[in-house]
Amino acid sequence: MKNFEHYKRGYYMPPEKSTKWVEKEYVDKAPIWCSVDLRDGNQALIVPMNLDEKLEFFKELVRIGFKEIEIGFPAASETEYEFCRTLIEKDMIPDDVTIQVLTQARPHIIKKTFEAIDGAKNAIVHLYNSTSYAQRTQVFKKSQEEILQLAVDGAKLLNQMAEEHGVNYPFEYSPESFTGTEIDYALEVCNAVIKEWKPTPDRKVIINLPATVEMSLPHVYASQIEYMSEHLIDRENVILSLHPHNDRGCGVADAELGILAGADRIEGTLFGNGERTGNVDIITLAMNMFTHGVDPELDLSDIPKLTELYERVTNMHVYERSPYTGKLVFAAFSGSHQDAIAKGMKYREDQGDGMWTVPYLPLNPEDIGRKYDGDVIRINSQSGKGGIGYILQSKYGFDLPAKFREDLGYTVKDVSDKAHKELSAAEVLDIFQRTYVNIEGPVQMLECHFVQGDGISTEITIMKYGEKKVYHGKGNGRLDAVSNAIKKHFDIDFKIICYEEHALQVGSNSQAVAYVGLEGKDGIVTWGAGIKDDIIDASVYALISAINRTGVL
Amino acid sequence: MKNFEHYKRGYYMPPEKSTKWVEKEYVDKAPIWCSVDLRDGNQALIVPMNLDEKLEFFKELVRIGFKEIEIGFPAASETEYEFCRTLIEKDMIPDDVTIQVLTQARPHIIKKTFEAIDGAKNAIVHLYNSTSYAQRTQVFKKSQEEILQLAVDGAKLLNQMAEEHGVNYPFEYSPESFTGTEIDYALEVCNAVIKEWKPTPDRKVIINLPATVEMSLPHVYASQIEYMSEHLIDRENVILSLHPHNDRGCGVADAELGILAGADRIEGTLFGNGERTGNVDIITLAMNMFTHGVDPELDLSDIPKLTELYERVTNMHVYERSPYTGKLVFAAFSGSHQDAIAKGMKYREDQGDGMWTVPYLPLNPEDIGRKYDGDVIRINSQSGKGGIGYILQSKYGFDLPAKFREDLGYTVKDVSDKAHKELSAAEVLDIFQRTYVNIEGPVQMLECHFVQGDGISTEITIMKYGEKKVYHGKGNGRLDAVSNAIKKHFDIDFKIICYEEHALQVGSNSQAVAYVGLEGKDGIVTWGAGIKDDIIDASVYALISAINRTGVL
Repeated sequence: MKNFEHYKRGYYMPPEKSTKWVEKEYVDKAPIWCSVDLRDGNQALIVPMNLDEKLEFFKELVRIGFKEIEIGFPAASETEYEFCRTLIEKDMIPDDVTIQVLTQARPHIIKKTFEAIDGAKNAIVHLYNSTSYAQRTQVFKKSQEEILQLAVDGAKLLNQMAEEHGVNYPFEYSPESFTGTEIDYALEVCNAVIKEWKPTPDRKVIINLPATVEMSLPHVYASQIEYMSEHLIDRENVILSLHPHNDRGCGVADAELGILAGADRIEGTLFGNGERTGNVDIITLAMNMFTHGVDPELDLSDIPKLTELYERVTNMHVYERSPYTGKLVFAAFSGSHQDAIAKGMKYREDQGDGMWTVPYLPLNPEDIGRKYDGDVIRINSQSGKGGIGYILQSKYGFDLPAKFREDLGYTVKDVSDKAHKELSAAEVLDIFQRTYVNIEGPVQMLECHFVQGDGISTEITIMKYGEKKVYHGKGNGRLDAVSNAIKKHFDIDFKIICYEEHALQVGSNSQAVAYVGLEGKDGIVTWGAGIKDDIIDASVYALISAINRTGVL
Repeated sequence: MKNFEHYKRGYYMPPEKSTKWVEKEYVDKAPIWCSVDLRDGNQALIVPMNLDEKLEFFKELVRIGFKEIEIGFPAASETEYEFCRTLIEKDMIPDDVTIQVLTQARPHIIKKTFEAIDGAKNAIVHLYNSTSYAQRTQVFKKSQEEILQLAVDGAKLLNQMAEEHGVNYPFEYSPESFTGTEIDYALEVCNAVIKEWKPTPDRKVIINLPATVEMSLPHVYASQIEYMSEHLIDRENVILSLHPHNDRGCGVADAELGILAGADRIEGTLFGNGERTGNVDIITLAMNMFTHGVDPELDLSDIPKLTELYERVTNMHVYERSPYTGKLVFAAFSGSHQDAIAKGMKYREDQGDGMWTVPYLPLNPEDIGRKYDGDVIRINSQSGKGGIGYILQSKYGFDLPAKFREDLGYTVKDVSDKAHKELSAAEVLDIFQRTYVNIEGPVQMLECHFVQGDGISTEITIMKYGEKKVYHGKGNGRLDAVSNAIKKHFDIDFKIICYEEHALQVGSNSQAVAYVGLEGKDGIVTWGAGIKDDIIDASVYALISAINRTGVL
């Protein structure tokens, strides 16, 4: 492929080996989550949210459990200023929630920012300037010293402004484009800012290391984070925060490995909205914890509701294969997957310890407000007996014999293949009923009587091609008797190789269903089913259905 | 959040520390790519592809440069059997491309599989059985020994069938659900299969370790892979392959770290199609290599074409934020990003070494067949002077003075904010023209003559509110003379603080554009522009436009 030689890595390795994180397997506690949906997420929308949409989104973030929410860059836009003022003046910020506002390291912007948050009980003032080699060279045309001074001057001004306003807000600093910055230089800038801010245990400083553009493999980012974590001054009073983007498709890995490497806090968005490929998806991170048995400390138990709100206010679409949230992420179309899921669900019922171990499903869809029905087992030409049987059983109560399931499986797949479409559960039921149940041609049973004596005798009245006749037969049981009557009078031969029956709850009526498998002289097996109020009627109808389906009459 | 305690990790740590991979920074060569679009990808579609669609997709995979393509599970479906036969019988498989077919470890399926590939020049027969604890316990209800035997019996049968058919196809074995399998047991099964197959340098064995369901952090998977890589027998004759899925959103990281850990080959799909959250996205992996300066050995220089085909035959939609391929992944709406991109592009032009270092853009969109125009700088209420100026310059040739750009920036943002929509380049141009260019009210210039003597004298004919008048003025230059004439006769005061002009190529006509910034007595700066065939006319129109816009007349 042309032009690959125009690229070289734009990131910097930590100056010393920083891979202790790799020894850790997982975390046992959720990090501090900070939502940047209303800032980084919003600024990446084709149409940014209006005031009402932002207010609705903010409320939902609070409801889910975010305690830190970046609400915008109030000095940069009238809309964001107004949003900030509305939250404060309408008293919409709960006491345990802190809003965060972004500001550049420029005096008039910092001043306007403090005006914007005037009266807020809790607020994080988030100062940033870009420190990367590329931005210093191409955009700002400033030396390392000058860029560092910009950060320090900004930090000083924040102290001053806080004093002037008589507030004690915590501060956050981001060396923006950290991933393109020489690590030791980034460290120097961060430490200079920390020195200026003099954090205490009661008023820690947040140092946020953004992967503004994701540039390296996630293990490199983690090593950068570990190096920073170990060399930041006053570390016990610093909250180390990450802000991953997803340009290389590794935002989630960056955050997870970064936490192992020492990070305490994650900035991200719901559904991974955000500039370009998006910010790291906090839902995925939180649900990854959940499925490892760690409390994510966010309430994601109603993903469909969240999806509805998100799609409505952002005009974005949740991708079908987005982990945990996409429409297709629990779907199993393929036969072997469906079979394993059906068996796994059965095993879980039998086991009864509540633990989730079902194959092919990383979690119980119901834990996030989704349904099995429609979400999990879905039927198309790739599906098999397991899934189709599971649908009929779980949704309609039909517990078909294994071999009958297989036969039905081929029938259903064939319909889907030829129609070139997915089939709904109702369509699967319809295929089952039309093909196998109470089949009344060429032979229709009109009446059937039994007499119990030495075995069972039967008298059956049958209509065939408009001709009504009465036949007699004997056997060990009722079905045997009917079977013998038909064999004798129609001069055909078959063997009943399977008979099963069970009660069937359809609405308020209880009916009975019977399944019959016949093996002909040629070894071919034909299936039929009968559904009737009475179990004896059902069994005879199943037999007649199977006989009708053999095609020998 | 409820129910997190119902989960525990379902994976197994390698029995010894296996983290040498973390010392490596990156790879210098692409792995062997194997596309599973037509198998794993296809079976996860709501409507699987039909024969024609598969043939078209296959051709495209070949065109891109895939040398190994898994085409299905021919023994499991009539459609897949037919597809396989068509490829072979119509001679559609180039000599350097190998098709791969999946088969379970069951005799009748293996036999049918060999029938399906009869006559193929190259084919990989891919044997799998599920080895995880969950599947052994819940689905197959078989012991470790029995499941191992199933694999070994399958492996033997493959040898036999190959001998019977007189073919020398390479084989692949997957311990399916590897990520849920005890690592030492997985190793035992793989080694038993290798022993059976007796690979040679000329006929290596592929051992494929799928993350059928992604269960652990990517560094755990990498460590599992390193352990397997170091303990597989006959390792130099084994091609170690990975098949990551994306349930935790880390499929790309799994593949990348897995390659560092020893993997030689990656199975995945375009755009990350595949079961549930999808297979690993080979486009992302390949483009990650590309942007690290490594030849991906796949031709992805026309992503829009690939997207069109993919969306048409799969009925899937490429997610807007999907790395490299999504519609929004190069988009910059925010002012500071636009400004940096515009400066970075300028720097790149000036630098001329071809290297790509533009901030906020991980790669040159043109390298994958995308355009700057429409893809990168996009204008909404979050946008700023940099982006808006860039659009006017790159698309229409207007090189506005910096402060004029800022003024225009506010005007454009305001329109977008109030209209609550994104603006096209044409709309931005329209706003610029309507607001600033050749403004003819309240004052309209009808004629303008200059006489050069001691300085410049001017006679201008002006229409104001329907009243035509002739004014005279003097100055150091033409603009100064006109300016003085107006100041004097209208009794207003202002200072020209900025004047710039340049030629403008519009279609085949060359015109001139001039920009004027006036500072009033109140310190407020007002901008105007003039566009005329003649540069002098343009400058006077710019001045008049600015004066008209002050609102003092």
